Amino acid sequence: MSDLDRALAAADDGLDKSLERLFGLLKIPSISTDPAYRNGCREAADWLKRDLAALGFAAELRETPGHPIVLAKQPKPGGLNVLFYGHYDVQPVDPLDKWETPPFEPRIAEVAGRKIILGRGASDDKGQVMTFIEACRAWKAATGDLPVGVTLLIEGEEESGSVNLPPFIEDAKAELRADVALVCDTTMWAEGKPAITSSLRGLIYEEVTVKAANRDLHSGMYGGAARNPLHVLSAIVAALHDDDGRVTLPGFYDGVGETPEDVREQWRGLGLDADAFLSPIGLSQPAGERDRMVIEQIQSRPTCDVNGMWGGYIGAGAKTVIPAEAHAKISFRLVGDQDPAAIRRAFRAFVRARTPDDCSVDFIGHKGSRAIQLPFDSPALVKTRAALEAEWGVAPVTIGSGGSIPVVGDFKRVLGLDTLLVGFALDDDRIHSPNEKYDLESFRKGARSWIRILAALAA
Amino acid sequence: MSDLDRALAAADDGLDKSLERLFGLLKIPSISTDPAYRNGCREAADWLKRDLAALGFAAELRETPGHPIVLAKQPKPGGLNVLFYGHYDVQPVDPLDKWETPPFEPRIAEVAGRKIILGRGASDDKGQVMTFIEACRAWKAATGDLPVGVTLLIEGEEESGSVNLPPFIEDAKAELRADVALVCDTTMWAEGKPAITSSLRGLIYEEVTVKAANRDLHSGMYGGAARNPLHVLSAIVAALHDDDGRVTLPGFYDGVGETPEDVREQWRGLGLDADAFLSPIGLSQPAGERDRMVIEQIQSRPTCDVNGMWGGYIGAGAKTVIPAEAHAKISFRLVGDQDPAAIRRAFRAFVRARTPDDCSVDFIGHKGSRAIQLPFDSPALVKTRAALEAEWGVAPVTIGSGGSIPVVGDFKRVLGLDTLLVGFALDDDRIHSPNEKYDLESFRKGARSWIRILAALAA
Repeated sequence: MSDLDRALAAADDGLDKSLERLFGLLKIPSISTDPAYRNGCREAADWLKRDLAALGFAAELRETPGHPIVLAKQPKPGGLNVLFYGHYDVQPVDPLDKWETPPFEPRIAEVAGRKIILGRGASDDKGQVMTFIEACRAWKAATGDLPVGVTLLIEGEEESGSVNLPPFIEDAKAELRADVALVCDTTMWAEGKPAITSSLRGLIYEEVTVKAANRDLHSGMYGGAARNPLHVLSAIVAALHDDDGRVTLPGFYDGVGETPEDVREQWRGLGLDADAFLSPIGLSQPAGERDRMVIEQIQSRPTCDVNGMWGGYIGAGAKTVIPAEAHAKISFRLVGDQDPAAIRRAFRAFVRARTPDDCSVDFIGHKGSRAIQLPFDSPALVKTRAALEAEWGVAPVTIGSGGSIPVVGDFKRVLGLDTLLVGFALDDDRIHSPNEKYDLESFRKGARSWIRILAALAA
Repeated sequence: MSDLDRALAAADDGLDKSLERLFGLLKIPSISTDPAYRNGCREAADWLKRDLAALGFAAELRETPGHPIVLAKQPKPGGLNVLFYGHYDVQPVDPLDKWETPPFEPRIAEVAGRKIILGRGASDDKGQVMTFIEACRAWKAATGDLPVGVTLLIEGEEESGSVNLPPFIEDAKAELRADVALVCDTTMWAEGKPAITSSLRGLIYEEVTVKAANRDLHSGMYGGAARNPLHVLSAIVAALHDDDGRVTLPGFYDGVGETPEDVREQWRGLGLDADAFLSPIGLSQPAGERDRMVIEQIQSRPTCDVNGMWGGYIGAGAKTVIPAEAHAKISFRLVGDQDPAAIRRAFRAFVRARTPDDCSVDFIGHKGSRAIQLPFDSPALVKTRAALEAEWGVAPVTIGSGGSIPVVGDFKRVLGLDTLLVGFALDDDRIHSPNEKYDLESFRKGARSWIRILAALAA
């Protein structure tokens, strides 16, 4: 029997005890955003510190201006070292009367033949974090050691903005050194079909104000001669896309690579066509680049969206004003090697070129971050794919996420670290809502998956 | 000595007494919008009723749900009959501490060689109304009669929305019958240069909502595939004008006539070029139809303006939402024989044609009114021009107003009456502001002008 098999057997044998421990953590009301649960947050952090110390980790709480961060280390000098990120805080439980069972009294239920673990945090993120810790425990039980060096960074403010995390990562830069980062709060593609998220889109976000006259004007007295900044801004917005759905900023597609054909082939097989994706939100026509699959449009292609726009009279009824100013919040999702600074410059030049000489334009630059992309042939990704396929009996999907996960950007920016996002949550887990659940199979096979992934990474 | 000369002499001789009467009316605080001045409004109405009765008018107060309307009649069967409109209510006086003299204690002051009457309502509209009443008084004093039949309709709610006026006009339709209407609350072109306003632009006002997804979406998760209604609406707004500043709605210019060359020539001589008109509001480039003078753009040409537009996140900071809905309030100023109903239909068809199939669009139809245009060769206009030239020694300007004056539309719609707008206010009268004034010359020569106009109309 191999070390791997022994570890897997240890996990299976210890499942009941694993669940007991998970329930212990789920019972702690660690709602980070509500000051009334300050003690609950510390209690959860302490619980994790004790549990990790019992597994041989050098575990401690690192104080922040908010809730403490759990940092636990079991390095492997000369071997591969991973940095695992998760969070112990949970969402508020309102509306409480919609819970079928009290949110901090976890229990197992059976629904439509599936066993589920019910409770706040069952999926997001205590259940997911414990799949990793139970995998470490199984390795220790089976072999007395971990196949790779492991540092766990488990914060307590993910649900309230993670404001203290980036400065901590900066400060603890040396301690957090590793070869690859693992982040666990993502979903599987579907029940029984695991997924690895290997890319995240970047973002730049600009706020634009076009100013025309020095005051609001009466459209009867001035209409026809005075410039209307809402017309100017609408024309700018309209010009940002061509008829094929492509963004028209000069140089916008510089650094946008093509997804390898085998990955696109994989995506094609997922059945996420326009109808499947759009009909739940009441739409039917993909709005993006005409020659791209929906899954590309939302994952691997860059986009531009107006997130807010306003000007003039927006109350009830009719008022005949030509406003002095018009405003828009416009963001771009970035992929590949697109340069946020260059795109911000191109955007501002684009706007200025379309602003009449007697109008002015102001910009507020909000967020800016590059896209994250783990190369599809990176060893960590290839090994993880194999480990997941061995556990689940089907090849995992390698997907991108259309959104941004700030910690992944921080790991890249501060620590120079690529991140592999693997999680076992399902879309129907009701995270952030009443009756949050985590499938027992997600928990059981999630831990087994991590056991295999750690072995694979060590190989 | 002619009747006209006798009437003019009577006005000149009675100027001091005319001013005394005006001051009597100005002392009454008839602020219609403030319930605390309810009695003041009635007092002003009573004052006018008594004064007009003393001139031989059949004068009475007509009650409304708000302040009473003064209706006074001295018809001339078989002769020409005019309907004169004015208002006895005034604007609030805040900020009171900005008044150099108490607003309801009128006095004469001399500023830069001009004698002015200071007080709330001095110009808007008590001073203007009294120019007409004093003209009638002079005719009565000189000849014992009026040259034309006169009905005065003086309302008390012009500054608070005139909500009770349209139903009154409907109800009193038979009593208000006349050959032409005279409205006095307009300005001269400049000091010493009188003006007749012979056209008002019409208006249609539409509110548009474009609906895309069935809920707000995260732009990371959906951006690139989901339709953004702000993009749809911006493209619609951008398409409403062509590069030459013309409105692109099919059929929009049907019924738009050309201003006679002699009137355009007159306008050309007024010196209201782009710089003179736009520099006070901080602009320099006329935004309307490229081949038109600014004075045409704002008076005799139809326009389209977005008066308000909004959608998505409009608070501080950045939020990455694709909104479910986008909204705009869009109005069109109409001239000549443009048909509001046809343009509303054309606009809705234009919007629907640019709305993707999986989006929907809702409309709220607000105001709709035709343009008002007294023909440039109408006898009343030609006679009034001559009368004003005789009084002021310069030809009056015949201009249009870019805005709408609802009572003029009501006179046309309900009574079938054309309106001649003649007033002697100046742009620097500070109406609606502290230290409102009316030039003594406006009052003196205003009354003399009406004396001449009544004689001219009777001829």
